[in-house]
Amino acid sequence: MLAHALANRDRLLADLADLVAADSVGADPARASGMEAARSLLETRLRDAGWNNLQRLLPDDGTGQPALYADRLDRPGAPTLLVYAHYDVQPPEPHDSWHSPPFELTAREGRLYGRGASDDKGPMLIALAALDAFLAVDGQLPVNVKLLLEGEEETGSPSLPGILEAHRDLLSADAALSADGARWRADLVSVNTGSRGSAGFEITVRTAGKDLHSGRYGGVVPNALHVMAQLVASLHNPDGGIAVPAVLAPVTEMTEAERAEMAEIPFNEAAFLAPTGAMGFGEPGMGLLERLWYRPTIELNGMWGGHTGAGSKTVIPHEAHAKLTLRLVPGQDPKATMLAVQDHLRARIPDGVALEFHGVRGLSAASALPGDHPLLLASEAALEATTGVRPVRVRIGATLPLTEIIRRILGIDTVMFSFSTADEDYHAPNEFLRESAIDEGLAAWVDILARVGRQSAEDYRRTGGPE
Amino acid sequence: MLAHALANRDRLLADLADLVAADSVGADPARASGMEAARSLLETRLRDAGWNNLQRLLPDDGTGQPALYADRLDRPGAPTLLVYAHYDVQPPEPHDSWHSPPFELTAREGRLYGRGASDDKGPMLIALAALDAFLAVDGQLPVNVKLLLEGEEETGSPSLPGILEAHRDLLSADAALSADGARWRADLVSVNTGSRGSAGFEITVRTAGKDLHSGRYGGVVPNALHVMAQLVASLHNPDGGIAVPAVLAPVTEMTEAERAEMAEIPFNEAAFLAPTGAMGFGEPGMGLLERLWYRPTIELNGMWGGHTGAGSKTVIPHEAHAKLTLRLVPGQDPKATMLAVQDHLRARIPDGVALEFHGVRGLSAASALPGDHPLLLASEAALEATTGVRPVRVRIGATLPLTEIIRRILGIDTVMFSFSTADEDYHAPNEFLRESAIDEGLAAWVDILARVGRQSAEDYRRTGGPE
Repeated sequence: MLAHALANRDRLLADLADLVAADSVGADPARASGMEAARSLLETRLRDAGWNNLQRLLPDDGTGQPALYADRLDRPGAPTLLVYAHYDVQPPEPHDSWHSPPFELTAREGRLYGRGASDDKGPMLIALAALDAFLAVDGQLPVNVKLLLEGEEETGSPSLPGILEAHRDLLSADAALSADGARWRADLVSVNTGSRGSAGFEITVRTAGKDLHSGRYGGVVPNALHVMAQLVASLHNPDGGIAVPAVLAPVTEMTEAERAEMAEIPFNEAAFLAPTGAMGFGEPGMGLLERLWYRPTIELNGMWGGHTGAGSKTVIPHEAHAKLTLRLVPGQDPKATMLAVQDHLRARIPDGVALEFHGVRGLSAASALPGDHPLLLASEAALEATTGVRPVRVRIGATLPLTEIIRRILGIDTVMFSFSTADEDYHAPNEFLRESAIDEGLAAWVDILARVGRQSAEDYRRTGGPE
Repeated sequence: MLAHALANRDRLLADLADLVAADSVGADPARASGMEAARSLLETRLRDAGWNNLQRLLPDDGTGQPALYADRLDRPGAPTLLVYAHYDVQPPEPHDSWHSPPFELTAREGRLYGRGASDDKGPMLIALAALDAFLAVDGQLPVNVKLLLEGEEETGSPSLPGILEAHRDLLSADAALSADGARWRADLVSVNTGSRGSAGFEITVRTAGKDLHSGRYGGVVPNALHVMAQLVASLHNPDGGIAVPAVLAPVTEMTEAERAEMAEIPFNEAAFLAPTGAMGFGEPGMGLLERLWYRPTIELNGMWGGHTGAGSKTVIPHEAHAKLTLRLVPGQDPKATMLAVQDHLRARIPDGVALEFHGVRGLSAASALPGDHPLLLASEAALEATTGVRPVRVRIGATLPLTEIIRRILGIDTVMFSFSTADEDYHAPNEFLRESAIDEGLAAWVDILARVGRQSAEDYRRTGGPE
């Protein structure tokens, strides 16, 4: 299988060049034709390879960018995997910063440059090429596979929940295997077992009916910026820890096994922080990775009020605004945690000052794979078999809405099995995919598909299966 | 004298109409001809009335809008007053909000509407009409008078210090009497005996080399907005009092006499605050007027950082900015007070975070007239004689740079003797002057000029004279 896949490497590169040339920037209405070109290329490819039931999926309201669906359900009793990838890409701007045209796949020094090469067209084609190798050689796959190729990942997946809800039966599976989601580091073989959740909202403080002159009213009326500063300052202790007990109370503590796994990871805090220009900061008594993967945060993303332009304007501002994002860990319910922060703030507002919450967004629980999930175990074994190195278990501090949406609607866990790497500038100019990822990815995908073929659907019913 | 002045009331109104029609908006280069028209009208008027030594004054560098100077120094041994007013006006925008054209003096319901009617063309012409009455009837003034009519008051008087420095001898006087500076309330006869000073600067906090992703770095690096909030929150106690001891230490406490004067003032805190839409707030244990006139403030005018536009951007901002203004009271040195606040902030900055101060502006000490200043006593007596009511002594919480600049460069005190009122929308559309101010003002100016004519220059050498 792998020999066939590797022999068809040139076909994969040609397909990637065609797919990169389709400028499928979902955020740009002027590039609707690029979105359609990407869909057509993929549909032709899937039809030629012998996939069944090819169709475009939309939510019940019929709007949004369609996801592509196809399946091969040849193996009764074997597990069914929902294989996920996405065909839309980030905008290319700023154009001037690209060293070669963004929509022209260009090989340089072991790297394949182009918008989408790393996120997610390259990793998607690696998965499809591995699957195609089984179809070409055996005429069937070792497991049941349902493909779901999304078209709105880079614009926040607004239609994905509706698509999953509208096609719940069609998409039912034992687990999801994602060709999206970058490897953490090029120098480390790792599997991702969890991500933080999120919750966001905005705060408005209002202290008067209008801005007032700081001479004529200074000292006798409240200042919205002072009130906002006191609210924000009340959220953290000076050492960086969260000062809202109700936010911390439900947090699931790290297990001894997780501590042992973390201790295995070669990690240099200073090297990690160096590119940021920041000094390390945060809850005392724990390492950086523990804070990043296992601790919640309350982070201001923006704050403003009063005169923010050039020169001076000696006003007492009557309104102050802030936007904030919570990062959540297992144990924390997104809505309850957000309400705990809002209660904390409300309790600290002076008499006569109005406090409003609005702009709630991104309520998404943390994800954590059960340590004995059969697809997690298969992914670890596949990586060890194809790299010779036992992967370490890592998490990410960011939020993967995909994982949460699939868990919530389809009731299954998602294993990330992408062969992009987090340093490949995939939301910036000069996005690239390491050429080495192609051989590594093909080998690992062939291995994991064969390995899951030796598991049974029954294995998945015990943990992580549909609820 | 007064009879003559009142008999020439129509002439004053015609002059005011002409002067309002000269659109002397100093901030608008397109209205340079309006500035010149105002100067020409005033020069013609002064020449016709018999003023001597008429000239335009500029700083040594020869730039800026000239101030007009003229004098009548007919009374050896009598006090010399520097009579101040300004001929420039605020911009008229927004035009749509005016009920009659801004540069067309329009009488309606006992009010004279027009840009500059109240600030300061009306009050300036009242003073000139009273002076002209003496010249017309007696052929001389009862005191020595030097006129200084400024052209940059509404743009912050940038050239005034240079003009005073370049013409220090020409402008030397025993005291200044200003036709600018509104009466506090229409229902109260008052004299102003003090104003707060000011000092302003900007703060920048920098925690990293760039904005960082709140998922990938949340909990492990500092957030510039959190640091800014903690700095700002540290400046005040929750009850509104200043929490920087070095700022409060040098404050001159109110005297018993000042407390007694304040107790005489009829004042309704709720009615004062009602138009602001704010609830009263500030240092506990003292009334609103004490806080406004006798206590310093540290007031944020603007604060901003991170994502302040629509939608969400889940960054950890690496920079935060704030602009602030201190209001100062007697005893406080502007620079030393500003440095005390900066020291307080610097002591609270976490390791690895950069703090910068810049944009220093408006360093101006508080002003307070000595209680026995001869011109203050004359102004009180003139008001009592012409209104039948003994005026109360009041202060203002705002800063009058004029007073500070004149004190600093010419070494003399300034008494405000304007007949505009603070509610006349003089920096807003539909600026107006009460018609009653004309008769009241003419009577009071005639009285005070005659009264100071009965004082001697010697009286001024004892207090408040040149240093």
